[in-house]
Amino acid sequence: MSSRPRAQPASIRALIFDVFGTVVDWRGSIIRECTALGRRRRLAADWPAFTDAWRAGYRPAMARVRSGELPWMTIDQLHRTILDELLPRFEIEGLTEDEIDHLNRVWHRLEPWPDARRGLALLKRRRVVATLSNGNMALLVNMAKHARLPWDCVLSAELFHHYKPDPESYLGAAAMLGFEPAEVMMVAAHKDDLRAAQACGLATAFVRRAREKGPKVKLDLTPDPAFDCNARDFVDLARRMAR
Amino acid sequence: MSSRPRAQPASIRALIFDVFGTVVDWRGSIIRECTALGRRRRLAADWPAFTDAWRAGYRPAMARVRSGELPWMTIDQLHRTILDELLPRFEIEGLTEDEIDHLNRVWHRLEPWPDARRGLALLKRRRVVATLSNGNMALLVNMAKHARLPWDCVLSAELFHHYKPDPESYLGAAAMLGFEPAEVMMVAAHKDDLRAAQACGLATAFVRRAREKGPKVKLDLTPDPAFDCNARDFVDLARRMAR
Repeated sequence: MSSRPRAQPASIRALIFDVFGTVVDWRGSIIRECTALGRRRRLAADWPAFTDAWRAGYRPAMARVRSGELPWMTIDQLHRTILDELLPRFEIEGLTEDEIDHLNRVWHRLEPWPDARRGLALLKRRRVVATLSNGNMALLVNMAKHARLPWDCVLSAELFHHYKPDPESYLGAAAMLGFEPAEVMMVAAHKDDLRAAQACGLATAFVRRAREKGPKVKLDLTPDPAFDCNARDFVDLARRMAR
Repeated sequence: MSSRPRAQPASIRALIFDVFGTVVDWRGSIIRECTALGRRRRLAADWPAFTDAWRAGYRPAMARVRSGELPWMTIDQLHRTILDELLPRFEIEGLTEDEIDHLNRVWHRLEPWPDARRGLALLKRRRVVATLSNGNMALLVNMAKHARLPWDCVLSAELFHHYKPDPESYLGAAAMLGFEPAEVMMVAAHKDDLRAAQACGLATAFVRRAREKGPKVKLDLTPDPAFDCNARDFVDLARRMAR
């Protein structure tokens, strides 16, 4: 456990948010849209398993970019590569190229957790609220429009050509907003993301998203005093930051 | 005059906006703030002339970056370089470093033209609205918060390390939003900016800002049929794009 003093809320000028799982419910959104697609196109795949497999393919694909094995590719491109492998594996057949492209962009149409919009609006009153996601800019902009997320600014690992948890992404975001790392708080439901941000000197807020991986997967939701803030959700975070 | 067919409004997915002069009244805003500063600090400079000189220094400074004579510098840095020359020239003395830094950031606090917020909100209903300014990201984000400009996305020449009118800035913005150049409309009060965007294949909208350079300077406000749209202001542009 770190002995680093907690950041004072007054010193925080901007909050940057992990998006997949922290702001939006990727799993529920994709299962819902795929189930509707399956009904319409008479496809009987196991959509929860398909969704989990799609997400599971993302970390190894991204790791190959981070290691330099693959050149820079956007998340849209990585998602498509994984999707092209999954369609035959899940015996999803007969989709046109346009339908596959539309399906790949389901990640642009994810729904926010119920507290997200309200919490962001509260936090936005006195601070800059921005994304810092591995999702590409077009994905994040389309998602913000779809989900009416009131970002002051959309920032992506794409801008730095370094995926989180590379330090360049956290430090790049703080610099681009014109703040010192310690003036910026990384908000995420994932402790590894927060630990990497903390190692770069950013403040950190852990937000519990118990259902990110569905009702059956037990996640580590224990508050960790090493983070500057541990919050139930974004509205709770806003309340804690208002102190 | 170009024989290029006019872009159909339905084909436009995003509008990207020049900011200084097109969205915000830099001249009026800076004169107002400097006049207040002068009163408070008992400085009797010719603030309109000072403001015009500050703005006039911007193009040559930027040209030195574009030509490679200077390394990449943000507009905040260029504004500060020019300001440091102007303060003695206008006999503005006795400001602390904090006051000079605050003054340099007056460009983060510019006021929008009266139609800007309303027009952007209308255009945002069906399309992505984003900046494409030579202003740096921090400047544009702070300005959007200050002026309550409802951007879907803040894009800056800073992201491409190429100032407008370099083609990399226009093409970079379209690519980052995930659109073809022809699906993106550049909106500006400056015909040179629009001509450079048009040469990259973007659609163009000219917006008249008769008072950008003050009441005494006559600007070229003639509609040009080479542009896809010529509008009085942003609300008029929204009306034309709704057709």
